[in-house]
Amino acid sequence: MAHKRLGKQTVKLQNPPSIIATSSIVGPKEGEGPLKNFFDQIIQDDLWGEESWEKCESKLQREVVKLALSNAKIVESQVDFLLAGDLLNQIIASSFAARQLAIPFFGLYGACSTMAESLSLGSMLIDGGFADKIACATSSHFSTAERQYRYPLEHGNQRPLTSQWTVTGAGASILSSSGGAPYITHVTTGKVIDPGIKDANNMGAAMAPAAADVIVQHFKDTGLKPSDYDLIITGDLASIGKEITEELIAKEGYNVSNVYSDCGIEIFDNKKQDTHAGGSGCGCSAVVFNGYVYKQLLSKKLNRVLLVSTGALLSPTSAMQGESIPGIAHAVSISNIIS
Amino acid sequence: MAHKRLGKQTVKLQNPPSIIATSSIVGPKEGEGPLKNFFDQIIQDDLWGEESWEKCESKLQREVVKLALSNAKIVESQVDFLLAGDLLNQIIASSFAARQLAIPFFGLYGACSTMAESLSLGSMLIDGGFADKIACATSSHFSTAERQYRYPLEHGNQRPLTSQWTVTGAGASILSSSGGAPYITHVTTGKVIDPGIKDANNMGAAMAPAAADVIVQHFKDTGLKPSDYDLIITGDLASIGKEITEELIAKEGYNVSNVYSDCGIEIFDNKKQDTHAGGSGCGCSAVVFNGYVYKQLLSKKLNRVLLVSTGALLSPTSAMQGESIPGIAHAVSISNIIS
Repeated sequence: MAHKRLGKQTVKLQNPPSIIATSSIVGPKEGEGPLKNFFDQIIQDDLWGEESWEKCESKLQREVVKLALSNAKIVESQVDFLLAGDLLNQIIASSFAARQLAIPFFGLYGACSTMAESLSLGSMLIDGGFADKIACATSSHFSTAERQYRYPLEHGNQRPLTSQWTVTGAGASILSSSGGAPYITHVTTGKVIDPGIKDANNMGAAMAPAAADVIVQHFKDTGLKPSDYDLIITGDLASIGKEITEELIAKEGYNVSNVYSDCGIEIFDNKKQDTHAGGSGCGCSAVVFNGYVYKQLLSKKLNRVLLVSTGALLSPTSAMQGESIPGIAHAVSISNIIS
Repeated sequence: MAHKRLGKQTVKLQNPPSIIATSSIVGPKEGEGPLKNFFDQIIQDDLWGEESWEKCESKLQREVVKLALSNAKIVESQVDFLLAGDLLNQIIASSFAARQLAIPFFGLYGACSTMAESLSLGSMLIDGGFADKIACATSSHFSTAERQYRYPLEHGNQRPLTSQWTVTGAGASILSSSGGAPYITHVTTGKVIDPGIKDANNMGAAMAPAAADVIVQHFKDTGLKPSDYDLIITGDLASIGKEITEELIAKEGYNVSNVYSDCGIEIFDNKKQDTHAGGSGCGCSAVVFNGYVYKQLLSKKLNRVLLVSTGALLSPTSAMQGESIPGIAHAVSISNIIS
């Protein structure tokens, strides 16, 4: 058995990489939400001087990587790999961002699980001695996601209460082979799990079984308990998906209620901001983690966090062809203390 | 500096993973081409019993992974990670294939560079001790690509002579921490390079600078010369892109003409099969590598190969918004001898 594996799906890092810096840039709506003071930058409109929403999203991702490098006090040429992805067809936000960043690039597609996917691969590449510095990034944009996945915004269609609001924002983490806390200590990689849901306006429920599965597997593989964590935070299940996830975890004998939250719930004040079930999008867990959670780790208000970004693996084509919506989730354990 | 790095963009694997098995499944047209005897399976029509081309592509990828596992004499539960991607929006061919394979899954998007991207990441994850067995897979399908990227097939539009023919096919490799030759010895990871080409019917030219850049960087980083290789094979540049690549490499002082070919040229008999510049698609380098090249390595007709899969990072949206077509290429060095 590979010497860094624990159980079926978990890797224990032997030289846990440091997250030496992060960055977050959000849109105007996210900048009015409860986490507004934790973001590095709030843009004033959803085009940010660009000609299209897609070009704005790519700019968000390019600028957030530059900001993370600046926060880490390093330059592009010191970075060995850029690991990035987004929701757009052919991940153009990431590819066009990478075009202006002279860093060897691995493109990822994990839907809204991308932040944890990039941190998972990035931390293994550093622990394995293949890189000293890696940038992990992702983005989403309300308007690019709406027109690609749902309806033209001009259509003004009514949103059901189960629907989520795609976050406009981008986040990046810089991983390093040397540096202080917090460290990535474990990676639990998820499988694709499909509960058979076909309603693209109820993605929290579609992703919940994958989230519950990877969290339970993390406990089984590592022997860690919910009480070992100060916070277990899923990516963008929002209110409906979070409730289902918590129930599914409880059925397996783990009570996470005291430490469990969801980025899609934290990012908006749902009552005041009319975001229905909550936030979603690759950018959701990216900005909540790189903005809020990372700063709580730095200030020791949190000391051990399990980040579980969650993705719904649908496309408009698969939905039109009658397919259900499979989910995936990846878990990354981040700690101020290396045990 | 990370201890496994050589130069700017290359990793030298210290415990080079074995490619213990591969598999390839192709469509009817590919099954009439010059490499027909090297593929494991040739399907008889482009639906393979499915209701849509997209479902057929997903089946191709699912079945090719199962076939590779069978060729390796292992089962799904022995595989630590599945690394896969494809050209479809939200990589649905891969995601829906992974749904039926109970293997922890990292989704990739590297356009037609995906085969080398998956082998790059997979070989590092094994060398680093994070996995014993990894499945790397990708697919493409002529009809899904045409309707997503270009025109409805029913439109019957004329194809310019610079255009390429997307390969219908899927290929998979099984990497292992133990086993015999061939081994993956080096990984050189490419950057996004954009020569400013806007013609989606001339993707070979759009990808050529990225291919040349990563090949030259591989020589510089490793000290290896063209004559150290029995074959340097790019992904899917086809005739026009290959010519440009060879010229660009020559300008940097390396003459590859004796050992250089391209998967897009090998897969079809362009004159008889009317495929214009040649083959393309993720499946192109996947089936040429996993079908033909791997068997040449096993039989020692080839002993050292540089596989350089190449991707064009466009989307119909980016093209409509006036963007040019950036390219990327990743190089994987595969050898029967570990030096």
